[in-house]
Amino acid sequence: MDFELIREIAIPAETKIVLLVMDGLGGLPDPQTGRTEMETARIPNLDRLAQEGICGMVYHVGVGITPGSGPGHLALFSYDPLRYRIGRGALEAVGIDFDLGPRDVAARGNFCTVDDGGLVVDRRAGRIDTDTCARLCAELRTIDLPGAELFVEPVREHRFLLALRGDGLSDALSETDPQQVGVPPLGVAARAPAAKATAALVSAFVAAARERLRGHHPANMVLLRGFARWPDLPSFPEVYGLRAAAIAYYPMYRGLAKLVGMTALPAGPSLSDSLAALREHWEQFDFFFVHYKATDSAGEDGDFQRKVAKVEEVDAIIPELLSLKPDVLMVTGDHSTPSAYRAHSWHPVPFVLRSRWCQADMAGAFNERDCQKGSLGLFAATEIMPLAMAHADRFTKYGA
Amino acid sequence: MDFELIREIAIPAETKIVLLVMDGLGGLPDPQTGRTEMETARIPNLDRLAQEGICGMVYHVGVGITPGSGPGHLALFSYDPLRYRIGRGALEAVGIDFDLGPRDVAARGNFCTVDDGGLVVDRRAGRIDTDTCARLCAELRTIDLPGAELFVEPVREHRFLLALRGDGLSDALSETDPQQVGVPPLGVAARAPAAKATAALVSAFVAAARERLRGHHPANMVLLRGFARWPDLPSFPEVYGLRAAAIAYYPMYRGLAKLVGMTALPAGPSLSDSLAALREHWEQFDFFFVHYKATDSAGEDGDFQRKVAKVEEVDAIIPELLSLKPDVLMVTGDHSTPSAYRAHSWHPVPFVLRSRWCQADMAGAFNERDCQKGSLGLFAATEIMPLAMAHADRFTKYGA
Repeated sequence: MDFELIREIAIPAETKIVLLVMDGLGGLPDPQTGRTEMETARIPNLDRLAQEGICGMVYHVGVGITPGSGPGHLALFSYDPLRYRIGRGALEAVGIDFDLGPRDVAARGNFCTVDDGGLVVDRRAGRIDTDTCARLCAELRTIDLPGAELFVEPVREHRFLLALRGDGLSDALSETDPQQVGVPPLGVAARAPAAKATAALVSAFVAAARERLRGHHPANMVLLRGFARWPDLPSFPEVYGLRAAAIAYYPMYRGLAKLVGMTALPAGPSLSDSLAALREHWEQFDFFFVHYKATDSAGEDGDFQRKVAKVEEVDAIIPELLSLKPDVLMVTGDHSTPSAYRAHSWHPVPFVLRSRWCQADMAGAFNERDCQKGSLGLFAATEIMPLAMAHADRFTKYGA
Repeated sequence: MDFELIREIAIPAETKIVLLVMDGLGGLPDPQTGRTEMETARIPNLDRLAQEGICGMVYHVGVGITPGSGPGHLALFSYDPLRYRIGRGALEAVGIDFDLGPRDVAARGNFCTVDDGGLVVDRRAGRIDTDTCARLCAELRTIDLPGAELFVEPVREHRFLLALRGDGLSDALSETDPQQVGVPPLGVAARAPAAKATAALVSAFVAAARERLRGHHPANMVLLRGFARWPDLPSFPEVYGLRAAAIAYYPMYRGLAKLVGMTALPAGPSLSDSLAALREHWEQFDFFFVHYKATDSAGEDGDFQRKVAKVEEVDAIIPELLSLKPDVLMVTGDHSTPSAYRAHSWHPVPFVLRSRWCQADMAGAFNERDCQKGSLGLFAATEIMPLAMAHADRFTKYGA
């Protein structure tokens, strides 16, 4: 979206906007019945939203492009995911709730095994358990790097996060992971003149880590990749003039929301936890991003019936959500995860927006087939926020 | 499309993609019946594709823009036809199967008639027959141009192709055709400093041609226009990681495919020739562009019934095509040629894609009206290849 235009036409209002994201929502037909998960689910409340609201099918990155969770959510927040990229290291940080800041460079780390000659023999150190990983991270955290603050945080098994915090750090660094065994780890090289100091810091860390880990076979060395700075994204609350909150249980989604400047509220895993957080903070914020993970997990597991059930569980809370009287309620997903496909997919995702200002359209139910009949057609996720602002009386007209 | 993005997410797979292009496919309703050619045709196999697959209406250059064959096909191959332009001279070369290369500059030539004072009296030399044209081309081919290889190839009647091959040639040249009679042919001028040497070469050719043709009234002079270099298009096989083949009988379409780096297979004029070529080369390639001309010719002739019959002929080979088990089969056109309009038109063209991963949509038949109900809606032809790659499991996800 054109944030300059949005800043120009955004105006204050008392209205409330809720964006409910059902992760991996879209699906594919069951070969037996010809009906998708959403078409199979009994979801009278969501269907009523579709009847009263405007519907469409959303793509997040581009037609035919399968979004990762980062690009999928950025697009829902109206950031063009092809323009605003979040590097691997930054995503890893976000995924463990590490508070990545503007002076940070982060990388994904692996503990690995090297032999007596220093050659990598196992890039994953036999997948050591997470407790061992945490112990070794605590050890590495005590390395002294003059000129930078050091963070070494466990992720899972052999994976950890390395972050350096300091002034003038750069992420233009080559990776040390050779991506094969039988060769030594690669040196860190600056890929731009401004990265020389950072390259020296990381090299010093790697050399010190080798010493500290010497006796800790199989985790006796580290590999680093995906160096990334804090992604300098425009502020969602500033661009839209919205006090914006995220209600998300999983760190990745809370982290993504924080990267765009939303306030991440404390949130439990269940839908009633989310409702409670909404109710508690209803007056303090204008915009609420509510994330629901279970639809995606069921799709990834290839569990059609569980995905049906998870969609029905969301349906059951819609009346209570509506009792808060949001001026704009939107329900959609960040990508499809069809049970038949068992993974993120490129298929566009059903979308509904309900407010008192909805143009009539032909969608009569909330599913893939009916939302195709909606007035929004097949459209880009980056248009969702402008639609929400308009329906919330938060945009003035453009031009006289 | 963003070729950088495609290179980034394209991954290898064993899958096969077939793009069947029915030239000039789209039509308009017959005033008597209210049904288009496609709606009139009995095409149960294509209709079944529409029921099982995803459908939409394709535009190639822009809404309301009638595509030439060049831009129409470039768009189908995912090259933005407004960005990638193929000059007239290059198209003429491709149209006669001339093997245009990166060191070439080509122009469209006309034999014309000049009077004793050197003024053009007939820009087409009385439309001399093609045999005469060929004889005169052979004569001109013997002109010696120091520093460049010369090609003069007959096209049809008074039209020929001029091509110069050499190092550092430029197409920034003014045309010699004055576009009117009663005036002399124009001189060739360099429109950029780097084109001076080429302008001198072309001027030398024109002067020599005037001498050689002096006794050949009415074809006693030449006019040149549409100077064009070889269009330096990104390589389709390289961008998509696809071994790509073209099965096309007409030189123009074979040439367009070669310009994007596809291998042009030997192909006969009939649909069974095309099927035979597909079968023979099935293992050697991942992507097949199959071109079918007869629908366009019938439309250009204003022959509604013949166009109906030609669509039905394609329908009859669909089962055999499917017996090859393509992972993705797409059927569409490069533009519309409604019989009622007797020419290329801007009307969007029905599109169907069938694979095992198709989202359900509302299109129940393969024609203009039903494809409008498809999940793809009205969409750009440059999105066809990303869709094909996704449905062929040849794209990994974008971002984590």
